[in-house]
Amino acid sequence: MPELRQDVFKNSWVVIATDVELKPRDFPINRSGGQHVIANSFCPFCEGQESTTPPELASYRRDGTEPNTPGWQVRTVPNKYSAFNPEGTFYSQSEGMFTRASGFGQHEVIVETPSHDLEFHELPVEQLELVFKMLRQRYNALAEDKRMKYLQIYKNRGLFAGASLSHSHSQMVGLPMVPESCRVMPRYYEENHICLMCKVLEEELALGKRIVWESEHFVILCPYASRFSYETWIVPRRHTEHYGEVTDLEISELAKAVKRLLTTLLDKLENTSYNIVFNTAPVNVDYQPGHHWNMEITPRLIVTNGIEMGTGYHINPVSPEIAARVIREKMGD
Amino acid sequence: MPELRQDVFKNSWVVIATDVELKPRDFPINRSGGQHVIANSFCPFCEGQESTTPPELASYRRDGTEPNTPGWQVRTVPNKYSAFNPEGTFYSQSEGMFTRASGFGQHEVIVETPSHDLEFHELPVEQLELVFKMLRQRYNALAEDKRMKYLQIYKNRGLFAGASLSHSHSQMVGLPMVPESCRVMPRYYEENHICLMCKVLEEELALGKRIVWESEHFVILCPYASRFSYETWIVPRRHTEHYGEVTDLEISELAKAVKRLLTTLLDKLENTSYNIVFNTAPVNVDYQPGHHWNMEITPRLIVTNGIEMGTGYHINPVSPEIAARVIREKMGD
Repeated sequence: MPELRQDVFKNSWVVIATDVELKPRDFPINRSGGQHVIANSFCPFCEGQESTTPPELASYRRDGTEPNTPGWQVRTVPNKYSAFNPEGTFYSQSEGMFTRASGFGQHEVIVETPSHDLEFHELPVEQLELVFKMLRQRYNALAEDKRMKYLQIYKNRGLFAGASLSHSHSQMVGLPMVPESCRVMPRYYEENHICLMCKVLEEELALGKRIVWESEHFVILCPYASRFSYETWIVPRRHTEHYGEVTDLEISELAKAVKRLLTTLLDKLENTSYNIVFNTAPVNVDYQPGHHWNMEITPRLIVTNGIEMGTGYHINPVSPEIAARVIREKMGD
Repeated sequence: MPELRQDVFKNSWVVIATDVELKPRDFPINRSGGQHVIANSFCPFCEGQESTTPPELASYRRDGTEPNTPGWQVRTVPNKYSAFNPEGTFYSQSEGMFTRASGFGQHEVIVETPSHDLEFHELPVEQLELVFKMLRQRYNALAEDKRMKYLQIYKNRGLFAGASLSHSHSQMVGLPMVPESCRVMPRYYEENHICLMCKVLEEELALGKRIVWESEHFVILCPYASRFSYETWIVPRRHTEHYGEVTDLEISELAKAVKRLLTTLLDKLENTSYNIVFNTAPVNVDYQPGHHWNMEITPRLIVTNGIEMGTGYHINPVSPEIAARVIREKMGD
């Protein structure tokens, strides 16, 4: 069974996925044959292969088509190689210095298109809207499970972003505990009676130099302390705590913005690997104000190395002011 | 000038290396031509190329040879592409929400052999001893500079560990502040009046299942909450706070252990990229007991992905109990 183990040296937790023990040759890096590619002989996310995934949790599909058959546009399935156990409840126990917790959690894959060869940024805007609606639907569905405390939506694109399948997909993990990183924003709110993100957004808009793009509902910027070169955040102007609260109107704008931004980044940065991480508020815990959902897009041009692992300080050789100018000029209005 | 910027969202700092702005094609990943190799047309670390590095800070060399000429066995030079400014002092200033600090710091490269083609684990034990002695010498030299607060020794081997040159080398960074991660061990000591590492070591030795190798002065183990598959720590039995306190006798044993361990890991894990990170006590700050230096060796078979970036929780598909058994069996006594 998978388990969470407390890392007393790093003040964090690690998920030990004991159910899917990988052999050295099974790691995507070693499978890739020395090339920057994700090598798989078979794709379980393609249309027609529905029976090779666990049964679907949700899909948008043509009227009259049956679940787990072709005819879908976006399809959510449990992650077959989940690091978490979807059954049971959360508990933790200690033996001496060693504290472990049940590896309870939900791990889902959102397959974003039936087409194997269409990349995320190549999808039509209408298709991207469906993806963001599916993410909202799954977010709100998982949030109803009181055992869930934090929902992490993320995307890995490319070998250097940790992807193991190339077919366009995102993932969502429902965790039984709130990550340490989620405590920063409510703490700021408690001390200052204002949302940290709203405050930063206000100052960034006044300065302008790190702003990439603005629309009615969203601002795209390169953050002041960018950890990765060309790191870019998409921030809703509206103070909204949960991604699950995003409106149809906002999704329509977001889909356009994401498509243009990713197309620009991939073109400018030589087809870079990237991650998208959604930051959002915890669920099913005592309410604490101060969260403001946003998306972090981090090109993975740089491999984190020993200095980052040792100190936690990232080294970024491209200032966000330069990155913002480059992306802004290329992306247009 | 390089600068440190406070990341208010992650409660950390980022080094923005504005002096060495990289173009997309300059990143080692993009320079590698789609292969898992570090591509450089020229190696500044080779014997005979001494004039292409900044003047050396220290070297072990044959009697009668001049600094910055051939004849050396181990050579320390300033990092030509340092992310830090070695001049000046530390100060920080805020404008609204944005706090930056001078990018003051020392960044050195320890070239571990004049031979381009000998990998670190292939060096003779006597050569490895010289490397560990040079690291000790530079550690103690930098610690004398009162502006330094933390010294990070690390090694990046291979493209997936963030290396940009293949010639065997380690690096040392002198930082003007103490990373957040260094606060865990003294906090534990304050609360429990015992060293966290000594306590964990005692329990690990009693259990045995995560122990890889033992010698008179060192224990090699796979940590309970291993973030990376086959992550391995080398821990001195003696409670020693600073790497700079390591003795000649300990170095002699350490060199043998490191050679055997790395040879085993590279063979077993298909020539994996890896990092070595030295954890040690801060310098030139008010004394706080509870540090215990150690080395973390992290094979980079897994690329950290969106879930790790979002939650801070690493996912590791090989339990440390399995990893320890595999390495132990291969490494022998």
